[in-house]
Amino acid sequence: MEKKYPKLTLVGAGPGDPDLITLKGIKALEKADVVLYDALVDPELLQYAKNAVHILVGKRAGKASVSQKTINRLIVENALGKGHVVRLKGGDPFVFARGFEEITYAEQFGIETDVVVGISSIMLPGLYGIPLTCRGINQSFSVLTATTADGSISEEVINAAKYAPTAIIFMGLNKLESIVDAYLKEGRGDLPVAIISNGTLKSSEVIASDVKSIVPVVQLKKPKAPALLVFGEGAASAHLNQIFSEHFKTEIA
Amino acid sequence: MEKKYPKLTLVGAGPGDPDLITLKGIKALEKADVVLYDALVDPELLQYAKNAVHILVGKRAGKASVSQKTINRLIVENALGKGHVVRLKGGDPFVFARGFEEITYAEQFGIETDVVVGISSIMLPGLYGIPLTCRGINQSFSVLTATTADGSISEEVINAAKYAPTAIIFMGLNKLESIVDAYLKEGRGDLPVAIISNGTLKSSEVIASDVKSIVPVVQLKKPKAPALLVFGEGAASAHLNQIFSEHFKTEIA
Repeated sequence: MEKKYPKLTLVGAGPGDPDLITLKGIKALEKADVVLYDALVDPELLQYAKNAVHILVGKRAGKASVSQKTINRLIVENALGKGHVVRLKGGDPFVFARGFEEITYAEQFGIETDVVVGISSIMLPGLYGIPLTCRGINQSFSVLTATTADGSISEEVINAAKYAPTAIIFMGLNKLESIVDAYLKEGRGDLPVAIISNGTLKSSEVIASDVKSIVPVVQLKKPKAPALLVFGEGAASAHLNQIFSEHFKTEIA
Repeated sequence: MEKKYPKLTLVGAGPGDPDLITLKGIKALEKADVVLYDALVDPELLQYAKNAVHILVGKRAGKASVSQKTINRLIVENALGKGHVVRLKGGDPFVFARGFEEITYAEQFGIETDVVVGISSIMLPGLYGIPLTCRGINQSFSVLTATTADGSISEEVINAAKYAPTAIIFMGLNKLESIVDAYLKEGRGDLPVAIISNGTLKSSEVIASDVKSIVPVVQLKKPKAPALLVFGEGAASAHLNQIFSEHFKTEIA
């Protein structure tokens, strides 16, 4: 059998809707010998990798069904044994994902690496009518995770509550009460908050309120993880949210 | 002649490489009657809109060749007169772009609107080997513009210099000295800095240094606008930059 050249391409699959992958990502899938894909990736995307072996290496919030160590090992074994490995990840491979670790690990074994960026969940607020910056009000936003390795609230959340006009918080749903406390301490109880659940999947939903009321609203509506929290003036445009959201769902239905 | 249904779809074309548009963006172009496209968009993308009228409404840093008012007017006139207008914008339509203004304006005329998100320049650092967050070092980054309406340095730059572990600064090349001064005032002269010029176009380039030395390096190398500035620990991985950058250029060459 012909010996294939070992290669790893990280591909960002985008936020859920399978049409939000890039053309470059599709071309990489077409050339794959093996696809290692996450649980959050729409399996419909695997149709572009007709001649490849498909291996689910899904991780879901809190439950690492396959450890990072195992994923790294699978990348190297498959690249050396079968050729071109496409590592298909939800969102973008670099935004709070472990793309750099996977690349660095593979390169230790002399494997060529490449990256195809994807639509990060950072782009989601726009789809739901939430501007991250407002002309004349603010010109910046911060992107952060709420969870730290030891489970405590991160210093970044405290700083965002103090200084960030708008904060986009990943992995924050389980930490919502602590985040709200940090904002209340800064006297920002009236700041609008939106929670975008399930990205652009058909099960996506958006809820909007403000800092002082978001906890009871969440207890009532029980949004599902993965969810993106947006703390900022732009989150107030809840009406537009619905319009955008409905259009979008119609398109992908 | 058949009267066509007026519609506006904002499409993010991504950071330069025409293969970094989404499949959803291509499908929108295929259904367009008119395409209004920016100067930073690769004209190769117009091939997907074979049956459409193509109108360049480009704006370049500092020089608004077509005013926003004129663009808004062209959107409405073409939607009402010709049907489905695709507004093809560089990067993402919502990140420091004026997507919301265009949508709000069109909706005043009863025009249906939709949005296809794109790869924002926020994703560029990853492509050049620059992680925006570092496990164990920091878990957040800030995204901001350096320019304000009145031409002064923005308050967001001052705040980023004080509090942001990593800052991604749009439209900052002309304001570099003032930004560096803000960081020096906070004692952050050793913080790594990278400048990514021309996105993922073939003419893209990356230069890396640190806060205290970046001004003379820029005077020497003269990077071109549009450029993205990255102030943060991740910008130190200059060696990896080159590797990524070369791969990438080979792919798109």
